[in-house]
This record gives sequence, C-alpha cells and structure tokens, in this order.
Amino acid sequence: MSNTFGTIFKLTTFGESHGPAIGGIIEGCPAGLVPDMELIRRMLERRRPGQSAIASPRNEQDEVEFLSGMMDGVTTGTPIGFIIRNNDARPGDYDALKELYRPSHADFTYESKYSIRDHRGSGRASARETVCRVVAGALALSALHRQNIRVNAWVHSIGGISIPERATIDLSLAENNPVRCPHTTTAEAMVKLLEKTRDEGDSLGGMIVCSIKGMPPGIGEPVFDKLNALLGHAILSIPAVKGIEFGSGFAAAGMKGSEHNDVFVTENNRITTGTNHSGGIQGGISNGNEILLRVAFKPVATIRKEQPTVNRKGEAVTVEGKGRHDACVVPRAVPVVEAMAALILFDLILRQRAAKF
Amino acid sequence: MSNTFGTIFKLTTFGESHGPAIGGIIEGCPAGLVPDMELIRRMLERRRPGQSAIASPRNEQDEVEFLSGMMDGVTTGTPIGFIIRNNDARPGDYDALKELYRPSHADFTYESKYSIRDHRGSGRASARETVCRVVAGALALSALHRQNIRVNAWVHSIGGISIPERATIDLSLAENNPVRCPHTTTAEAMVKLLEKTRDEGDSLGGMIVCSIKGMPPGIGEPVFDKLNALLGHAILSIPAVKGIEFGSGFAAAGMKGSEHNDVFVTENNRITTGTNHSGGIQGGISNGNEILLRVAFKPVATIRKEQPTVNRKGEAVTVEGKGRHDACVVPRAVPVVEAMAALILFDLILRQRAAKF
Amino acid sequence: MSNTFGTIFKLTTFGESHGPAIGGIIEGCPAGLVPDMELIRRMLERRRPGQSAIASPRNEQDEVEFLSGMMDGVTTGTPIGFIIRNNDARPGDYDALKELYRPSHADFTYESKYSIRDHRGSGRASARETVCRVVAGALALSALHRQNIRVNAWVHSIGGISIPERATIDLSLAENNPVRCPHTTTAEAMVKLLEKTRDEGDSLGGMIVCSIKGMPPGIGEPVFDKLNALLGHAILSIPAVKGIEFGSGFAAAGMKGSEHNDVFVTENNRITTGTNHSGGIQGGISNGNEILLRVAFKPVATIRKEQPTVNRKGEAVTVEGKGRHDACVVPRAVPVVEAMAALILFDLILRQRAAKF
Amino acid sequence: MSNTFGTIFKLTTFGESHGPAIGGIIEGCPAGLVPDMELIRRMLERRRPGQSAIASPRNEQDEVEFLSGMMDGVTTGTPIGFIIRNNDARPGDYDALKELYRPSHADFTYESKYSIRDHRGSGRASARETVCRVVAGALALSALHRQNIRVNAWVHSIGGISIPERATIDLSLAENNPVRCPHTTTAEAMVKLLEKTRDEGDSLGGMIVCSIKGMPPGIGEPVFDKLNALLGHAILSIPAVKGIEFGSGFAAAGMKGSEHNDVFVTENNRITTGTNHSGGIQGGISNGNEILLRVAFKPVATIRKEQPTVNRKGEAVTVEGKGRHDACVVPRAVPVVEAMAALILFDLILRQRAAKF
Repeated sequence: MSNTFGTIFKLTTFGESHGPAIGGIIEGCPAGLVPDMELIRRMLERRRPGQSAIASPRNEQDEVEFLSGMMDGVTTGTPIGFIIRNNDARPGDYDALKELYRPSHADFTYESKYSIRDHRGSGRASARETVCRVVAGALALSALHRQNIRVNAWVHSIGGISIPERATIDLSLAENNPVRCPHTTTAEAMVKLLEKTRDEGDSLGGMIVCSIKGMPPGIGEPVFDKLNALLGHAILSIPAVKGIEFGSGFAAAGMKGSEHNDVFVTENNRITTGTNHSGGIQGGISNGNEILLRVAFKPVATIRKEQPTVNRKGEAVTVEGKGRHDACVVPRAVPVVEAMAALILFDLILRQRAAKF
Repeated sequence: MSNTFGTIFKLTTFGESHGPAIGGIIEGCPAGLVPDMELIRRMLERRRPGQSAIASPRNEQDEVEFLSGMMDGVTTGTPIGFIIRNNDARPGDYDALKELYRPSHADFTYESKYSIRDHRGSGRASARETVCRVVAGALALSALHRQNIRVNAWVHSIGGISIPERATIDLSLAENNPVRCPHTTTAEAMVKLLEKTRDEGDSLGGMIVCSIKGMPPGIGEPVFDKLNALLGHAILSIPAVKGIEFGSGFAAAGMKGSEHNDVFVTENNRITTGTNHSGGIQGGISNGNEILLRVAFKPVATIRKEQPTVNRKGEAVTVEGKGRHDACVVPRAVPVVEAMAALILFDLILRQRAAKF
Repeated sequence: MSNTFGTIFKLTTFGESHGPAIGGIIEGCPAGLVPDMELIRRMLERRRPGQSAIASPRNEQDEVEFLSGMMDGVTTGTPIGFIIRNNDARPGDYDALKELYRPSHADFTYESKYSIRDHRGSGRASARETVCRVVAGALALSALHRQNIRVNAWVHSIGGISIPERATIDLSLAENNPVRCPHTTTAEAMVKLLEKTRDEGDSLGGMIVCSIKGMPPGIGEPVFDKLNALLGHAILSIPAVKGIEFGSGFAAAGMKGSEHNDVFVTENNRITTGTNHSGGIQGGISNGNEILLRVAFKPVATIRKEQPTVNRKGEAVTVEGKGRHDACVVPRAVPVVEAMAALILFDLILRQRAAKF
Repeated sequence: MSNTFGTIFKLTTFGESHGPAIGGIIEGCPAGLVPDMELIRRMLERRRPGQSAIASPRNEQDEVEFLSGMMDGVTTGTPIGFIIRNNDARPGDYDALKELYRPSHADFTYESKYSIRDHRGSGRASARETVCRVVAGALALSALHRQNIRVNAWVHSIGGISIPERATIDLSLAENNPVRCPHTTTAEAMVKLLEKTRDEGDSLGGMIVCSIKGMPPGIGEPVFDKLNALLGHAILSIPAVKGIEFGSGFAAAGMKGSEHNDVFVTENNRITTGTNHSGGIQGGISNGNEILLRVAFKPVATIRKEQPTVNRKGEAVTVEGKGRHDACVVPRAVPVVEAMAALILFDLILRQRAAKF
C-alpha cells in the first residue's frame, strides 16, 4: 500500500536498486499540461550519482523513458508511465552482505517484516527509489510554475558547518557548488570537511531548508491533511530524514503568544502578515506568505570503517562498507525535497478545485 | 477528504466547536476486542477543558456515547459510531469576531479556502476536534495493550523551562501535576510560569516527548508510509504543532556516521542495537527498540492582550481575546499525541497481517 | 474499510438495525450548497417502513439530525455528521434467532467472517442501513438539481407482473400508488398480488428502472472507474440486488454491431446519438444522453412460512419469520437506487473538476 | 484516479494502444509467493490478438517483462512493476479518424472529458489495456490456487447462439475451440456464425459465465464492498460489458421467497445450502458455495460497413472501420473476466486477515 503517494495527483513507484529498472506511474495529471522536459532533466541531473567528486561514483545517466500519457508533448489526462534503466547495477557486489545486518541500515527491519530480503544494494530500501519521486515532482513543478509558485531547497548545514544566522543568501548561488549551499564561504568549508570525511571513510549528516513562494492562500485541508502534516509526511518519507520543522519550528516552544503571533496587515490591497512565524501556514492552510521548512538528515549509514554487527544467526561479525556511496547525501537530497514538496502542493491545489461551489 | 485518517483501522470525524455535537466513526476495528472503557474515559479526562486551574474553564464532561459496533462490550467488526455533545458551547460569544481575522488563527485561511467560515469558536479549526482523536486513539491503545505495547507521552518543556538534560525521569509522576511533567521540580517551575503568563494575558509554547515501548520489529512500510513518516503526518496534524524529530533528530545533522550508527548486538537471544540513535526505526520500519519522538508546540494564538489586525475589508482594527482559553495547551495535548501515535501503530500492525504468506 | 463510499464526495456510515441510532458522515461536500431539506425529508419518507399497508409495520419516523457542516442552512465545506435514532427497535424479538441461521440471510456468512454476530434484527446486515445512503444521496441530489440533472427510479416489475413493453409511462404517476409503478393498471395488479402474497406469508422480488437525464457529456473515468462500473458497484451494494444492466443490457449479447451502434447526429447544434443502445455511456464516460439502468431484486428472505435450516452446531431445526418485514422491498428500494446513483454522479462531477487545465 | 484497482492487493496501470508500451504496478502482493509464470503466460496467450483466425490479426506476442518485486522467482513484498511492449502498433493507420467520432466508440466522450484525445487506436480507451489486468489477475490466481480456489470462465452465447439450457458442460473442452465454449456443437455453430459475420464486415455480442469454486465462507465486506458489488465493479469496468447478474440473477425478480430461499443443510460435517440461488454470496459475503455470475457483452463497435457519423465540427460524414479488429471480443474476454474476478477475490482474502482478533 505504501508505494502510492497523493490523492488526486498520485505517484506509484516500483523498483529496486539493482534490478533491471525502476519506474512509476503518475496519475491524475490534468490534460493539457506541457511538461517542462528540460526541468525534469535538470532535476534528475541534480539528484543523480556521479555528478561530482563528492557524490557516489555509481554511474547512472538516469534518463527517463516516458511510456504513456502524452501526445505531441501534451498530457492527455491518462496515466503517465515511466521507467529508468539501472545501467550500472552490480548486484554481485553485495553477496557478502546477504547473511549479515549492516548497522543503521534497513537489512534487519526488512527481514523482520517480510522474512525475505533483497540484499542487492539494499533492494527497495535504497535511496535509488527517490529518482522516481524526482520525475513526478518535476512534472508537478512544471504545473506549479504555470501559477508562478516557486519551490527552492538548499543545503543549510553539513556536519555542523552552517550558514551563519544573519547571513544574506542568494539562492542563485546554490547550484554553483557541489554541496548546493548558497553561501559561498560556507560551501567551501563544507566541501573541505566532506573531502576529509570521505578520506577517513566516514560520513556526515546535514540540514536542508526549503522555501515555497507564490502559494495562493486557501490551500491545505483542515484536520488530518493539514498542509504542514502532508509536507511532513512527504519529507519524512525521504530516506535518512530525522526531523522537520515549519516556520518558527522548535523555537516556538520557547516563545510567548504575544511574540509569536503574526499580526495581519494590508499591503498593496492584499491581506498578509507582518512577521511570518507561521511559516505561511495557519490552521493547516496556506495564508499566501512564504512557506519555510527545515529538514534534518542523519549521516549516511554506509561507512568504509570496519564496524561490529551480527549475522542472521545473531552471531557477532564485522562489516566494512564497500559498494559506491556518498559521504553525505544532503546535496543530492535537495531536488528530492523540492520534488516531494511539489507533489503535495500540486495535489492540494487540485483538491482545492472541489472545495466550493 | 481530509477528515479520514488511517488505512485499515480508520477514523473519520465531524463536528465544530460550538455545534450541537462532535463525533466520529471508527472503521476496521477487528471483531473480538473488548475495549478498555476505563482507559477511554481516563484519556478523555486528561484532555478535557476544566480539568485544572491552568486549563480552559470551558466546562465539558466529554462523555462519549457509542452508538454501534459492539455487542455486550465486544467489538463486532462493524463500524463504531460515537458522539460527544457540546454542552457548554456559547456560540454568541464569538459574534464580535465574525468580521475580523484573529492573528495566527485559521480565520483568514478558512475564508480563503471556502469563502464561508464558521466563526463560532473557530468552528472546525478549533482544537475541540481532537476529542474524537482521543476516543479512537484510546480504542487503539486498548488493542496495543493486548500486545504489551505501551505509548507514553509527557511534557518536556514549557516556555523555555525544560527537564534538565541528564535528569532521570519517573513517568509515573507525570500525572501528579497539572502540567504532565514527570520531573517534579521542573513541573513546579512550569506551573508558576504558567500562572504568571495567564495573569499577564499571554500564552506559552512547549515540547512533548513520546515513547513507544514493546513494538515488535517489522512494523512500518517502505517508501512513502514509513513508520516515522506516518507518525509525523499524524502528529503534525495536531493543532499548534510546529516540528517533530525522531531518535537523534536534528542533532543527527551534526554527527558522523561512525558516531551515529547503531551497532547490532545479541542480548537475551534477541537481536537489538547498543545505541538507539535510530529511535527504534530503520528504513521506516520498527526494529524492536524504543521509539522516541519529540514535538514542538507554538504558544496558543488567543491571548487577552489587545492586538492589531484587519477585518474582512482589510481595514486595520484591534482584537482582544475573550472566550475561554488555555494559557498553554501542551499539558492537554499529551493524550492527543498518545492517541495519534496509537492510531498509526495499530493501523500498521493490521497492515502487517497482509505482508507475507 | 467497506463503510466508506466515494472518492471526493464520500459517505461513511455506521449503525445496526436495533442499536440506539444509525448515522453517517458526508465528506467533501463543497462549501456554499443550500441543501434541499424538503427533498431529504421526502426521500426518507419514501424509504421508511410503515409508509403504507404493504410495507413493514415497523414505526420509524426517520428524522435525521444534522450535527455539523452547515451554518445558517449553507454547507461550510466541513464534514456533515448526522444521526437517526432507532425509535422502534425491539432487539428482544430476535432472541430465538441467536443460535440458528435463517435461509438466505447473512447470519451464517457474518458469523463465518467475524466469529461474532449481532443477531438483533440482522445487525449491520439489515437493510435499515440504507437510510443513511438516502440522507447522503438526497444531499447529492440537491447539488445535481442545481445543474438540472434529474434522477428518477420506479418499479418496473414485481413477482412477474411488468409494465407492458411498449406502454407509455408518465413518471409523475409513480408516487401515486404504494408500489411506485408509473403505469396505473400494472400498479393495481402488483398491489393485489402483493396483498395475496403477504397473506400467504410469502414474499416477492421485482425490478427497478432508473433514468438519469441532463448529465453533461464527459463525466466518468476511463478504465476501472467507468461510470457504469461505479453505478454497478453502488447499486449492487444495495441489499437483495441480483443483477444490473445498462442501456441495451443483456439484449446486446444477441445483437450485431451494425444494429447496436449509436450513430452520431447533430441536433440543435449539439452532438448526440440517434439511438441510445449505449444507455448514455460510451467508454465509461457519459455522452449527454439519458442514462438508463435496470436492477433486479430477489424476494425478501424473511417469510412467515416455516422453513428448515440448521443451528450453529449444524443440527437440523426449523425457523419461522416473525419480526416486522416487507412482503416486497422493491417499492421502498426506489429512493435507495436514486440515492446511490446520485452519490456516484455527484462524486464523478467533482472528480471531473481536476481533469484538465 | 481511476487507474488503480484494489485495496490491499492493488493494480495500477498505464498505457495506450499505440504507444511504445503498456504496463502496470502490482502492490500488496505478500512476500513469499512463487508466481506461476506458466499460468501468466497461458492467460496472456488466451487474451492476445492473433491467436486464431477469428481474432484480430494484430500481431502482439504480449511478453511481459517483470522489472521488480521478485528475487529468485519469489515475491519480496515490494511492488511488482511490469511492461509489455507494443510491437505491432501502427499509429498512422488512424490519421483519418482524428477529426471524427466513430459510432459507439469513446472518441466523443474522451474529447468531452479531456478536450484532447489520443486518436491512435483509441488510445487509453482501447481494450488493449486489459492485457495488464490479465498479468495481475494471473498473479492473483497463482495465490488463489495455493488455497484451492478455482476461477473458470467460458463463453455461453454469441450472437444469439447459446449453450442449451440443460446441457451438461465439460469445462475442459472450453479451450479446445477458438470461441472458448465448452459445448462442442454450440461452439461449432458459433464459429460458423462468426466467420459469416466477419465476412459481412459486421460484429457480434455474447455472454460469458464465470464460476468460482473453493471460496471459503466469510469473504466479502458488509455494506458498500459486498463481494458481488466488487465483482460487479470489476467486471463492468471491462470494455463492452453491458450487464451482470449473480446466482438467480434477473430471474429472481419473478420468484417468491419460498422458492428462492436457499435452505441450510449439513453435509459432510459442513454447513452448506441445498439450492444455490444466492450464487455463493449472502449479505455480500461468501457462504462457501460456488459463486456464479453471467456477463453480457455488446457487439464490437468497429465494423467494416460504412456508417454515418459527425466530425468535430458536428458536420455529417461517413466512417468505415479499417484497423485490425475482432468480429467478436467475447472469446478473448474470457481470461479478462477470470483476471478481474481473481483480483477481487485475492484482495478480499487479504482484507479478511484484519477482520478479527
């Protein structure tokens, strides 16, 4: 059941890291959209392994083949099937891992769940599945752009190195460096730390910030499907995410109502708020302001250092990461965060079409 | 669409704060459960207004009337309908708010969404709707208790006052004080601060920690419905929640893989992990360890101080909170967090029944 | 899972025949509808027991209490909860049936499914649950009437007595007689047969025809949720239904393509078809013509004659219907058929809002 | 929304008749199944065009490529993606149809719905999409066979030629002739009529009967998802189906309760019924007896005869079927009926796992 995401605009995915292909089906895309193919290509490029010296050297071009749902470049309203071939899969690399459980990987939990586990490159538990999210999310972005809604994510911190609190950031710089950090000196420090960590055979966590601008007010559903609850669901489902906060976030827990409340004002004949502690969402529904969320990622579980663990019989053994892994996934996760946000936003915008007479 | 929650064990709710009644339908409860009616009553008591001097003085006994789905105290497999009458509703109290938007409330966003808004006590946007979540969550807890799964939440901080980092806490103390904090001296400081804040006409935010013990390994779904993603969805849908983290949470962003990884060990013939940075969840699936999550709540938006805002025409006006409100909802939100967690856990346990031959 | 029906406009119901109340929650009704309360009342009146000498003498006024989702008679977009008290329940009447399985009732199958069974008036298996369908269906009809869509059902046959094949029928006559047959002489013959059958302690089946006029073309979904497939699902879920056909129906199986095809023509600047073997639906989508369907109902299973059966131990026993039952449910099922059709039509109309840019 | 079918065991499909490929994703298949690949191949063979002289000459081998969800021939619990290449697509054949609406095809209704239409071989409205249903249905059958549940469909009538009412039929003969009729002399007459009709450029409808044996009692859901309602939904969603009936079916409308009721008896220590007017289903739940349903198909809309119609401007034009079409789809629809029934049965069996403690 858990391979489908969304209500009207829906993505269903399949595929393991080292099978012949992964792919998905996008349902509920309204007829008459001209998907921005260049945007899709660029989003995939930002996510793909092998894109820089600090990313996994697995060599996947991640070219998506669309199999249905469009005619002459226009969506027809029917489901959009797509596949991406796994060209550089090396299932044999994982034979040694068949009988043991890697620390902080999903080996043990998958086997507990299914009694069977595809050990080749973590099977379905591999972050490789996120490539399908990017395809669908980029398509949703195509639609959001028509309404001038912009979704931008960037790396805020890696391994304790953060953009300074009051720094002005210029988002156009985020793609100028391999860590996707829009603050150049911070980015340089991050790259250095990452190279050192990689050479030590270790890995790092980090934080991503995501900004959504241009959302019309009134999007989101009361009670269970609040805009923040759905964004939380979407983004907490990305591998390695450990926490999420919106607007004032955890800091709100220490504030007073009189400090935190966002006072309404009229600007340019439009009702808005002076401050934005609400992060653009009130009562689960967008208020037209910038939506801001921050996401924490844990360090990659695969490290080159030797670690103790147990095998399937529960006997103590050791494991050493081989495979081809990132020292930090956070830079590659940036388009995944954008994609998941876009899926939620576009789905809620379509749901809104049935909200009133 | 957003009034139903769950996949197999499902809750659908209805009701506004100042209408005649609120209620819900619980579907998918397996036949043969003897719900613990005393547990349901106790959970409702912990949530209800008027329970202590620091809670809203609205006087609701919150007695639930079950209308179907049981025979002689045993569930029959058919849907369980229930209602709770609103006995102390005073819709007239809100007439003055009909034409203006209270800061950080959902007035503006509901009206943007539906073009019509029930202004009486925030209508459906009132946290009064959470009483239905508690009914269904307590029923789910009844079922979880049969499997020795325990869900306990408590208040960790209010307005900046927190349980000290290395304090040992005795959960049995949490219900001995009106703030539901299991650390007595911290609780006393919280109560004092709350009284002062209430007298100043202001409000406070805070944090809740939730612990889940006894979960069998293998519960949770890969990809989109990861256990943490669903818990996140559930808890971020509670009014006033601004952030959530699991296990190591935001701190993980600053850690190395070699520090963060939870090494597997065998203890008492059972595979487990030495550390628990994973917070009991790996790859979105429970690993049998304690699940730990932390939730941030913003301060209550309604304060007695005068605040500027705008009316429906966009003209500047002022508003002063009247109604009957809490200076801090966090203590009353404790059973709501437990209830939402229980809904997810029991639903996933039922989903697991179809996971393998 | 099976107590919710619909995708955007959704009905969830609860309640047993002899519990305190039955009811439901209607979700997804757009804000801004003024439900036609008189229509709802009239639909309930047509369905309720005790309405005529040939219906069950159970005395239920079936007054619906709406608990939420409207303000000053207008829907607000939030869920509409409602209950109907069971005023004339007599659970004690069924004590004798606790240990045996009535022929062609759901006693045996419910017990096979749940290991427990509410034997009081068939519990959830009672057709009493259809009263909730009528409430929601009548609300949907309110919305359809705004678009000049009309749904009319009537009794075509009872116990082998049918409206003659080429008879002209005047639908306005259908409500003039207790069997809801718009052909007066046929209606008279049906009433006579029903009285005789009732006196013999037996029961009869029959057929209902349903006509939907004014549907815009383009409503319905390709592949799995074809308009006819959803109407089939909806109507086959009504108790006692044994078959359904659309347009040419079973007769189509004996026809040639050249006879059956509906040729397109232009009339009054509108594209339509000359014949209507398609019954208003082509490829699962409405074409703007009248939608016509026919439904077969089996005779009521409860009869006053003594019948052999077995008890829970499998021992041969006899059973004789007591309770208060209809000799034929078909006249009372007419508004239920209309209601189920209306639920599907309005839901699909709302789904269509997301079909194109 | 309408491209997904099922609740736990779910199929989502994509693909147009003349695109590069069609395919689907099967979710919710429990881990540990060894799918019967030969069964899948055989089911596809029975459905594929080009299988006999009376079927469409389009040459598709319909070889399915499974892309995920299995390891060493065993299901792993993860989604099963599959594609089937369209090898003999000839989109150019349809250029002449771009501007007109073929009688009783979905051209007009698709265009009404989406404002855009893939005219190449009817696009998504082509019965070619049923090949994906057969893949998933055959997989479900693999699972049902483990429990000794057998699903068999056959052709009962074509163009008015039916198996005589009291004929004994030997299902093993159904696959011995190109019309899939298990009554040899009837089959011969059908073939002759089909050849004649094909030569005249016309087409024929027919009826399929489907029998399900070995269902345990207790499968199916009360109220909206009755076993018959779901089977109805499934089978009415197959292209060209005009009606369905269960057990006594339309004949029940003319019967008395005392005739129609199925009396319970004990046979071989098992409770069953003497007669089977219920068609194996009571109150929407299986009772352990044979489930029997009959399905009516209309004649194929594409005929070689010239027909009047209108073009997109509403002007009168004529159309003559070219393409490669069947004179009667009923024989090729037999495995599709079996597949759709299997999808429902297996899904409900999995849903039943959560029905009781």
